[in-house]
Amino acid sequence: MKNEGYSDVVIIGGVAAGPKTGAALARRMPDIKITLFQREEYISYASCGMPYFASGDVNSFNSLTMTSYGVERSVDFFKKTKGFDVITGSEVTSIDRSTKTVTVRTIADGIVYTHGYGTLVIATGARPVHPSFSVPDHPNMRYFTSPDDALYFKKTAQQGKLNSVVIVGGGYIGCEMAEAVRVWGFETTLIERESQILPVTLDADIAELVKSEMVRNGVNVITGASVISIQTKENRLSLDVTNNGVLEADYVILCLGVRPEASLAASCGLSIGKTGGIIVDEHMRTSDAAIYAGGDCVELKHGVTGIGAHVPLGSLANRHGWIIAENISGKAASFSNVLGASVIKVFGLNTGCTGITENAARAHGIDVEYVLAAFSDKPFYYPDANDIVLKMVFAKDTRTLLGLQAAGRGDICRRVDVFSSLLRNHANINDLLAFEHGYAPPFSEALDPLHHMGSIALAMDRGLSFINPLRAIAYFVKNEAPSGAMILDVRETLQYNANPWPEAGNPRILHIPLNDLRDRLHELDTSKEYHILCGKGARAYQAWTILHNAGFSRAHVIAGGMTFLSGIVR
Amino acid sequence: MKNEGYSDVVIIGGVAAGPKTGAALARRMPDIKITLFQREEYISYASCGMPYFASGDVNSFNSLTMTSYGVERSVDFFKKTKGFDVITGSEVTSIDRSTKTVTVRTIADGIVYTHGYGTLVIATGARPVHPSFSVPDHPNMRYFTSPDDALYFKKTAQQGKLNSVVIVGGGYIGCEMAEAVRVWGFETTLIERESQILPVTLDADIAELVKSEMVRNGVNVITGASVISIQTKENRLSLDVTNNGVLEADYVILCLGVRPEASLAASCGLSIGKTGGIIVDEHMRTSDAAIYAGGDCVELKHGVTGIGAHVPLGSLANRHGWIIAENISGKAASFSNVLGASVIKVFGLNTGCTGITENAARAHGIDVEYVLAAFSDKPFYYPDANDIVLKMVFAKDTRTLLGLQAAGRGDICRRVDVFSSLLRNHANINDLLAFEHGYAPPFSEALDPLHHMGSIALAMDRGLSFINPLRAIAYFVKNEAPSGAMILDVRETLQYNANPWPEAGNPRILHIPLNDLRDRLHELDTSKEYHILCGKGARAYQAWTILHNAGFSRAHVIAGGMTFLSGIVR
Repeated sequence: MKNEGYSDVVIIGGVAAGPKTGAALARRMPDIKITLFQREEYISYASCGMPYFASGDVNSFNSLTMTSYGVERSVDFFKKTKGFDVITGSEVTSIDRSTKTVTVRTIADGIVYTHGYGTLVIATGARPVHPSFSVPDHPNMRYFTSPDDALYFKKTAQQGKLNSVVIVGGGYIGCEMAEAVRVWGFETTLIERESQILPVTLDADIAELVKSEMVRNGVNVITGASVISIQTKENRLSLDVTNNGVLEADYVILCLGVRPEASLAASCGLSIGKTGGIIVDEHMRTSDAAIYAGGDCVELKHGVTGIGAHVPLGSLANRHGWIIAENISGKAASFSNVLGASVIKVFGLNTGCTGITENAARAHGIDVEYVLAAFSDKPFYYPDANDIVLKMVFAKDTRTLLGLQAAGRGDICRRVDVFSSLLRNHANINDLLAFEHGYAPPFSEALDPLHHMGSIALAMDRGLSFINPLRAIAYFVKNEAPSGAMILDVRETLQYNANPWPEAGNPRILHIPLNDLRDRLHELDTSKEYHILCGKGARAYQAWTILHNAGFSRAHVIAGGMTFLSGIVR
Repeated sequence: MKNEGYSDVVIIGGVAAGPKTGAALARRMPDIKITLFQREEYISYASCGMPYFASGDVNSFNSLTMTSYGVERSVDFFKKTKGFDVITGSEVTSIDRSTKTVTVRTIADGIVYTHGYGTLVIATGARPVHPSFSVPDHPNMRYFTSPDDALYFKKTAQQGKLNSVVIVGGGYIGCEMAEAVRVWGFETTLIERESQILPVTLDADIAELVKSEMVRNGVNVITGASVISIQTKENRLSLDVTNNGVLEADYVILCLGVRPEASLAASCGLSIGKTGGIIVDEHMRTSDAAIYAGGDCVELKHGVTGIGAHVPLGSLANRHGWIIAENISGKAASFSNVLGASVIKVFGLNTGCTGITENAARAHGIDVEYVLAAFSDKPFYYPDANDIVLKMVFAKDTRTLLGLQAAGRGDICRRVDVFSSLLRNHANINDLLAFEHGYAPPFSEALDPLHHMGSIALAMDRGLSFINPLRAIAYFVKNEAPSGAMILDVRETLQYNANPWPEAGNPRILHIPLNDLRDRLHELDTSKEYHILCGKGARAYQAWTILHNAGFSRAHVIAGGMTFLSGIVR
């Protein structure tokens, strides 16, 4: 086999971690030769922007492959602006660690050659998970991982031939695509195998808010159901779905998640973790000291659980590129661990998380508590104040913070980012109260929701008791409440009348505005169970205090209040 | 003197820290007697919202005195909902620590009595700084610290009798009021004694962006000028201003800052700090173990400088209330120190800071470096992406972070809040790169501006050199550049032609698009001084790298690029 040269650094993969490594390295070591091989012709494109191209929010696909100043990130651009060689349409098919060479095959004409390296960087990304059954050969039967997928969907959507689209998988991409498809006006169905959407990143309660937002916007969301097979039927696609019979669609998008594309690394004997990702140390170095890896193909240590995790996010991949370049250039930069901070917009709802969920914590055997509460992101009196619901998970014994989930029309990113920064420092409940935020009415409340979350956790030490809003729905909407259990609604009469919950005239509702509660305590029975309801939870907390101090031992606040309950489509 | 009873806890002051202490304490200790004395009739009002009431953004003053669910925070509300006594219109005139009594005088009828306490909480707030000259007795000669000030301004503005308003003082309230006044259409002048507005919280460069936003919106901003006297003249007000002659106005608002209202504390012998604030320990306890203090009347330890600071912010006052309540109820909660995180909206510009400025650091004898750079808050391809300019100050030797300033139309709060959280942990440059943010195109870039700030600081270690944009303006607009110094503009030709800087045909401009720079290096002279310009700074940084590696030793990036320079009104 012909040897086509040598580079000091060879990079495999040209989407995020690869080009970032090359550019950062060329700035640090201008005299070395760097060559990046990329299988596709597309290079360095904003893959996270593809759902927004599909929806039409982003007009031109070119904008995803351009710099912010309008220059195509082409081979020429990498050579002349960034100072290193990019070879597209060329797949690395094997790595020979003993001779320090890679074998390259050109996609267009199948020419095979070897190329030597001093240091190798593997940035091969992730590949989509395939279903257990074989998918039919139909042009509208797609994944959504490549630019071709995005371009094809948009072209097909624009041609006006689609009536119904089914998305299989309710993870981030599935949810983003549900919106992207629905805004075209198509009948849109999302099918998720688990009992909730976004099962990896959200608990069932917060996920229910996101699902409801989809339902409100006309998406048919089916959870707890698996697609057993997909067939073509008269040029359409037909899906056999457990408990849901057969669905027909003009277009099916499989969003079953991704796995590390580590086959190249595995076949040359690099250590692979349980997640299927390449194992790297804190310097992003693999088990071979001459080989680094970064981006969606690696396994990272989780900052909360301490165990291996596969977290495929463009934000991490870009940082990996920097870390790798620093290390190759002789600086000992570290990527400590991953927290999984992530955000997503689903129609008008912003949602996101960092750290681990209550579910995940329990699965890891951690004894957890959580606070779920609703807030306004700005003072109510300022224009454009919006609601957010937060769920914070923390360790029962040490009070160490474990994770935050957020959903709402308001500003959630600020809280996710700050909480992420607190998690990085193994902060506890008291550190939340020490957080100092920027306050002015156009931006925030005098006390940040994170301060209140800490304060509520302290109140739980004093006995404050919550009922999860999903359980409250089971109790009072599905009538599963224990005999005698009541809703104590402490909202103002106007608010209560405008929006009684679960409905007007429900005999389980006792309505007493908070300010009257002390005077009307005699109407309550200390032996009874009360579930206290208000708008966001603050009044219910105060009402609980009054009841608690009056000897009521079976009082609970309905977490998230009407803000949560109104967010749920029944 | 008659003794009118005893309370386990007496609180003096009813705006923020006082009511928060009372409410939090009543929840924790329902069986004790708590009494709060407030001089005014107004209680627990959102004073930070007053400028927005003045501007009209907030319609009704009542909304500033109501809970979010529409209930007036009245004496009745505090009694029945919060569970403690509030006595308004009653001024505490002295504290007798030996007998543990306070003397109270009713404002309406001058009745004087004493009231005993077990524990005392001083939350007397701040008072406005007065000018050195005496101000005339004229109804339109006002401060802007009380509800009456806000109500009177709005009434007067609505009556349509005002043509011109002068605001004296360019701190936060002065800047907020400049907008509030200007949106009524009045001729608006802001006078600041220092050479820049917001001199405590911003450096001159970032402050210049804020000033320019005011100027763009029609505010006449005069800096470096003092008001020597104010007189009435034919029912108007006339101001004698250094270097600016005499200004006439229909209305004058003095916003000269505030000082701790600590006279009551001082006269009973409590320790007072250099700032004039009451000295408290980390539990918010004064030099008398039976007396706590919180809010705008206390001196806090600054988290960066370690010395006493007076930071009058509602966000801090509310947290003080919690800390005091925790401690009185027997929990050892701490308020560690203050960072001064704050944000403000000035017309369409968001600005804020946390930690200390470059100026302040130098004044404290700290050897500092800074990074000033511009970013987009979201990917450029996503709708509604907006610019932000950040300035980060860090210690030259230890690389410890010292402060962040931000200004722009984009989302600055997220970065201020995260940086604040990093400062709390004494983070350094490398910790910036370890920050994990929530990324999705509707909210953020794959790399957060804070990541880039860290990366730029690392590049400075490799020699990357900046010129401050204000200096670049002096060089190339005011023609103070050293002989031979050139602007190397590396933007695309279309961008350059659309917006050349400082102007088309300037002989000091050499325009070479970045992608052509390597090929056209021969047009440059290694001995010459080049100031490299692009849109936000990223291309200029890359161009600097190319020049640096080619042996140019006098190349500098114009920090903030065209984003900064275009933000300045010349």
